[in-house]
Amino acid sequence: METRASIAQVPLFEGLPADQLSKVADVSIEQKFGKGQTLFSEGAKATGFYVIVSGRIKIYKLSLEGKEQILHIFGAGEFFAEVPVFAGGAFPAHAEAIEASRVLFFPRAAFIELVRSEPSLALNMLAILCQRLRRFTHMVEDLSLKEVPGRLAAYLLYLGERAEGSDRLELDTTKGQLASLLGTIPETLSRILAKMSQQEFITVEGRRITILNREALENLAAGEKLPG
Amino acid sequence: METRASIAQVPLFEGLPADQLSKVADVSIEQKFGKGQTLFSEGAKATGFYVIVSGRIKIYKLSLEGKEQILHIFGAGEFFAEVPVFAGGAFPAHAEAIEASRVLFFPRAAFIELVRSEPSLALNMLAILCQRLRRFTHMVEDLSLKEVPGRLAAYLLYLGERAEGSDRLELDTTKGQLASLLGTIPETLSRILAKMSQQEFITVEGRRITILNREALENLAAGEKLPG
Repeated sequence: METRASIAQVPLFEGLPADQLSKVADVSIEQKFGKGQTLFSEGAKATGFYVIVSGRIKIYKLSLEGKEQILHIFGAGEFFAEVPVFAGGAFPAHAEAIEASRVLFFPRAAFIELVRSEPSLALNMLAILCQRLRRFTHMVEDLSLKEVPGRLAAYLLYLGERAEGSDRLELDTTKGQLASLLGTIPETLSRILAKMSQQEFITVEGRRITILNREALENLAAGEKLPG
Repeated sequence: METRASIAQVPLFEGLPADQLSKVADVSIEQKFGKGQTLFSEGAKATGFYVIVSGRIKIYKLSLEGKEQILHIFGAGEFFAEVPVFAGGAFPAHAEAIEASRVLFFPRAAFIELVRSEPSLALNMLAILCQRLRRFTHMVEDLSLKEVPGRLAAYLLYLGERAEGSDRLELDTTKGQLASLLGTIPETLSRILAKMSQQEFITVEGRRITILNREALENLAAGEKLPG
């Protein structure tokens, strides 16, 4: 019961019906780790993922010289190692308790069995994750719309300069690469390009972009807001 | 084959191994809609979700007076209606083609069967979504760290004023509500509160927050960066 309450808070399971939460709880194994104890090492087969009940776990890599680089520190209510476990790979980093910690371990094999016998559990988890993803997509978009148009405008002007002042540009990256360069996602980049086209600042045909209104791009790059 | 290529681009399936992509493609049914044709209506049972091959689909609601409110316009490569389908509910809005469109329809029943016979498909999809979610979480965090500390500081000072200048505050919302009020996610809010505590700007005990350094909060609210 206490396990179920811990699990119900985890974003991965949040919103599952009670009977499925119980089944998920039944699969989990409680483990305790003292400060400094290792949970898993980089390269080992990812046999299960973890939910932290209490304590803190650091995820880190070691350089060839043995220098530690901390990637994350996770605390109560957070989960980790689910990507390699779901994808069926190896742990991509080391994990160590930085204080006395209680975790729930979800063995991959038992979890697969559970999904096989109860496909709607997997569908519910997919629904939860899709919903979070939609929410995050909007959030990234809201946050991006403040700054990304300006950065994109500056980048287009830079490409123009590099092409010796020409207004006809060819993007030298994919939209996915450009989006991550600008700190956003491809969906939002597409929407910003569409807006800039509607405003007749540019025209876009595939990777070819023509600057129609250089002054407008310069204003955007200087911090003015993209209209509409 | 063409279907598989369309599906391989969809964020929901991106990165699935070829044999699983083929199985997903086999489940899908190609449908064509003319401009103005309805795909589904609000309240109808969500019998399947859609991936757009070409064209554009608007998702909208109707007010009691029959006024249309557009929620989204989706284009090629985008998917929709997966949340009610996975969760097993009703379509939460209407969908209509705003130009001639080709879509792939994924019936819920066939999809469930596929997950039952091939649980690793669901796990791979969960891995993909978890990975995207982790990436988006970082992105929201990166974007938030520029502005959210300032907004949080302003909010704490406002709570202080409302408490007649007292330094001992009680949050009147949950952390989840406060996070969305500030335009971020609970994970990032927790990290910012932890940083502010480390800097000894505030102390946090559950919902009780004590202001230790009012000047530092005023500087943050004025746009100064949160150190560390």
